[in-house]
Amino acid sequence: MSELDLPVVDFAPDRWGNPASATGLPDSLQATLDTLGIRPLGPPVAPDDAVLDAPAVPAPVRESLARVVGSGHVSDEAIDRLRHTRGWSTPDILKMRAGDTSDAPDLVVRPADQDEVVEVLRVCAEAAVAVVPYSGGTSVVGGLAPDRTGFDGVVALDLGRLDGLVSVDPVSRTATLLPGTRGPRAEELLQAEGFTLGHFPQSYEGASIGGYAAARSAGQSSAGYGRFDEMVVGLVLATPRGTLELGTAPRSAAGPDLRQLVLGSEGTLGVITSVTVRVRPMPTVRVYEGWQFPSFEAGATALRRLAQDGPLPTVLRLSDEVETTLNLADPASAGAGSAGCLAITGYEGASAEVDARRAAASAVLEDCGGIALGEEPGEKWRSGRFHGPYLRDPLLDAGAFVETLETVTFWSNLPRLKEAVTEAVQAALLAHDLPSLVMCHISHVYETGASLYFTVACAQSEDALARWGSAKAAANAAIRAAGASISHHHGVGRDHRETYAEEIGPLGVDLVRAVKTTLDPAGILNPGVLVTR
Amino acid sequence: MSELDLPVVDFAPDRWGNPASATGLPDSLQATLDTLGIRPLGPPVAPDDAVLDAPAVPAPVRESLARVVGSGHVSDEAIDRLRHTRGWSTPDILKMRAGDTSDAPDLVVRPADQDEVVEVLRVCAEAAVAVVPYSGGTSVVGGLAPDRTGFDGVVALDLGRLDGLVSVDPVSRTATLLPGTRGPRAEELLQAEGFTLGHFPQSYEGASIGGYAAARSAGQSSAGYGRFDEMVVGLVLATPRGTLELGTAPRSAAGPDLRQLVLGSEGTLGVITSVTVRVRPMPTVRVYEGWQFPSFEAGATALRRLAQDGPLPTVLRLSDEVETTLNLADPASAGAGSAGCLAITGYEGASAEVDARRAAASAVLEDCGGIALGEEPGEKWRSGRFHGPYLRDPLLDAGAFVETLETVTFWSNLPRLKEAVTEAVQAALLAHDLPSLVMCHISHVYETGASLYFTVACAQSEDALARWGSAKAAANAAIRAAGASISHHHGVGRDHRETYAEEIGPLGVDLVRAVKTTLDPAGILNPGVLVTR
Repeated sequence: MSELDLPVVDFAPDRWGNPASATGLPDSLQATLDTLGIRPLGPPVAPDDAVLDAPAVPAPVRESLARVVGSGHVSDEAIDRLRHTRGWSTPDILKMRAGDTSDAPDLVVRPADQDEVVEVLRVCAEAAVAVVPYSGGTSVVGGLAPDRTGFDGVVALDLGRLDGLVSVDPVSRTATLLPGTRGPRAEELLQAEGFTLGHFPQSYEGASIGGYAAARSAGQSSAGYGRFDEMVVGLVLATPRGTLELGTAPRSAAGPDLRQLVLGSEGTLGVITSVTVRVRPMPTVRVYEGWQFPSFEAGATALRRLAQDGPLPTVLRLSDEVETTLNLADPASAGAGSAGCLAITGYEGASAEVDARRAAASAVLEDCGGIALGEEPGEKWRSGRFHGPYLRDPLLDAGAFVETLETVTFWSNLPRLKEAVTEAVQAALLAHDLPSLVMCHISHVYETGASLYFTVACAQSEDALARWGSAKAAANAAIRAAGASISHHHGVGRDHRETYAEEIGPLGVDLVRAVKTTLDPAGILNPGVLVTR
Repeated sequence: MSELDLPVVDFAPDRWGNPASATGLPDSLQATLDTLGIRPLGPPVAPDDAVLDAPAVPAPVRESLARVVGSGHVSDEAIDRLRHTRGWSTPDILKMRAGDTSDAPDLVVRPADQDEVVEVLRVCAEAAVAVVPYSGGTSVVGGLAPDRTGFDGVVALDLGRLDGLVSVDPVSRTATLLPGTRGPRAEELLQAEGFTLGHFPQSYEGASIGGYAAARSAGQSSAGYGRFDEMVVGLVLATPRGTLELGTAPRSAAGPDLRQLVLGSEGTLGVITSVTVRVRPMPTVRVYEGWQFPSFEAGATALRRLAQDGPLPTVLRLSDEVETTLNLADPASAGAGSAGCLAITGYEGASAEVDARRAAASAVLEDCGGIALGEEPGEKWRSGRFHGPYLRDPLLDAGAFVETLETVTFWSNLPRLKEAVTEAVQAALLAHDLPSLVMCHISHVYETGASLYFTVACAQSEDALARWGSAKAAANAAIRAAGASISHHHGVGRDHRETYAEEIGPLGVDLVRAVKTTLDPAGILNPGVLVTR
């Protein structure tokens, strides 16, 4: 463990991210909303006014849990329960704003270590109490809303006390981290040893190591540092049947790679209590810059050429025309974007290596019609990159609706997929008389394909949840019809469960269920997430 | 399908590889054997003289199978059964030379397509006949020797007719290949389209696409092209319960990566009937060269630096002192190697890129004490790289014993692992009064670790199998004790089954069994391979 002692952020139950970073609505966006006649709806229910059911976990079970973790680490305080209710998706936030506390856990239990986790699972399995492993709490796909039918209550298993850097192997460049370590703390601990994880998802401030692994997170520097699942070399999983330790080598031919079952398991198979990851030395140089492309197609070709023939920048993104114009990613200048399609490239590493890579990549970008915009737009993106989502709260307050969704496919299928999803979402919202803006970017590239990340904006309405539900269903269907994957990095949760089942087919679902039943025979772990019960 | 029609090689049941490439024993090696007093044992049983049990599959089942695939594609000919008996390990070859046909399949069945595979599995599951999926037949870990207890016979399901290139997506750079396509044919078909797989395992001439995937093959150019499991983006698996299609995108967060269950499943979960892989454009330039290092430690440091900080050559290998001296890899000059530790670097790609990468890698190699030996040793390695194993047959004829084994671990553990395995094998053989030579190389590197590949040579004895069995058990135990993986690219088969069970633990074994039972409830697929029944 480290001696660093970072302040713990108390995230609000009804807002995105760190309250200290909350932002107002820029005038430019307010003007747009005014033009469109979008006005605030009634005021939201404040968390203090939200009404919770009495905790359902039977008293003897609660006492057993208190014996395991100490009574100070079992809580049924309202604010604690609310903070562990659902995640950070727009529907999650809207439900909380509507005072809907139906998914609240009955208890929040905070084990101190692996042994206590195993013991909590034993107690809950015996008592038929459902357990939701909770580390960052940033799911945007309903991954924290279990199906409680048939259970004697729901425990949020908060892993915040399993926090820290266990060890670093500087020769092998691996580090073992505890699951409750949030992104900034993991970086701080690693950087004190001269290393970086290089993992910066948009939920960075809240998300944690265990969640990165459980949900196959991808960060904004994935071109350079890879996805989180590609960084993982070892895992420890506490299950109701005991502990599973996986990962004896970087790669192996010793049977199926069981690590790949735990990655993406979203708390349904066990509780990840330790993650060993590949780390990299801290870069000495960082350069970010902007490029303008005449069209999304030209920009996508440039990204594909870099992904296939190299060299790869550390960060590589491309916004389409709508996203470039609106520039929602930067609260400071939202609504006042530029023309064409904006690409961001970032390079991190040692000085000479960065220079060479940047020169070679720039030649490819220019060859594809890119015009260099210099470092200003790059730095603006870098410094503002975690701020974009904070715009959602003032937008919701102002009567707008904003949500995102994402997918991934092979390069040749990318244009068709982009068009199909955009059309499906817009048509579904228009059927409710809601004109919408759908903007899109590529932010993760592979040799054979890339992700597409969509942001959808329209007027909020009293039944926003239902209307968005139909748009989301249309998007899911379009993604499936195009043969793409239902998620590149958000995961399955409950929101993507049905499309996921179609994606892997009935035999695939049987496999996931068989694996779950093997490790969690009582089915207490995050029931209803990933696959139906 | 392609119109190319490559000649089909008839591999011998008791020899390595293509009979046309058979080699004699170089004088230098014969002299060494003479010095050591190693003399030929009695002559081996010729395949024509081997005695087979009558085929056990009941006549009605055989008739059903003939109805599925056509009677011309069901064979119980002796030579056919012998060619499908076991694989290419030294124990496998010695058993065949001893006339031990106990693992021979009863029938060889050759389906034409996916539908016929599914139907054969249905017939065999109903009749309790075991099925061994057979494509290249090059297993060196007992992957083709099922446990037939309780079954009404064993069918070798030869996938030779599922051969060819189904499609290429030049934009996404993916290709779909059929499982029976052997290495050289896959390359020929892809190269006709301007692409290469870049996968060259030592068994290249015999191994096939389905086997590459089923056993997580790694090729000699893994530094540049990656392991085979890293190339796979899609798979179709025919199982007794129907077909499982996996792979909607390069990477996804849609749950556990089920492709990673099929990869490494070694024919125990189903029959891989189609593999979609990432391909690369054919390189225009190829340069191979040799480097001399004063010690294995210095050379390993150089390899680690290239793997961690780049740039990576396409081929990167390092032999230890013993292997460098003996130079068994090249029959033309075997026994007459050089001093120090020989490293081979190879670069493939476009001309300017290769030049830049070679210059930067050479600087690292020099900085670690490497002395450039020029292109001659590199070209010698490249042209002779598939010939080394052909030395085994004349060595066995001359009374010597040679076998290989391999493992993988993290960099910081590499020296300890190399020492532990070497000592364990030598001590075990010495307990049988067999002094041995143990040589080692690194041939696959990762950021966090590398593989170790050992070649063991000693005198053959009448009970060579038992003696090697105890040495192999000692090696397995040493690998496990060192916390390394029991296989980097050979797989588990039956030979590594017990150590694999220790590596993944009882819960891990339960998981593998649960997955198998889900797809293959009757347990007919390669029974006894990977995990005990």
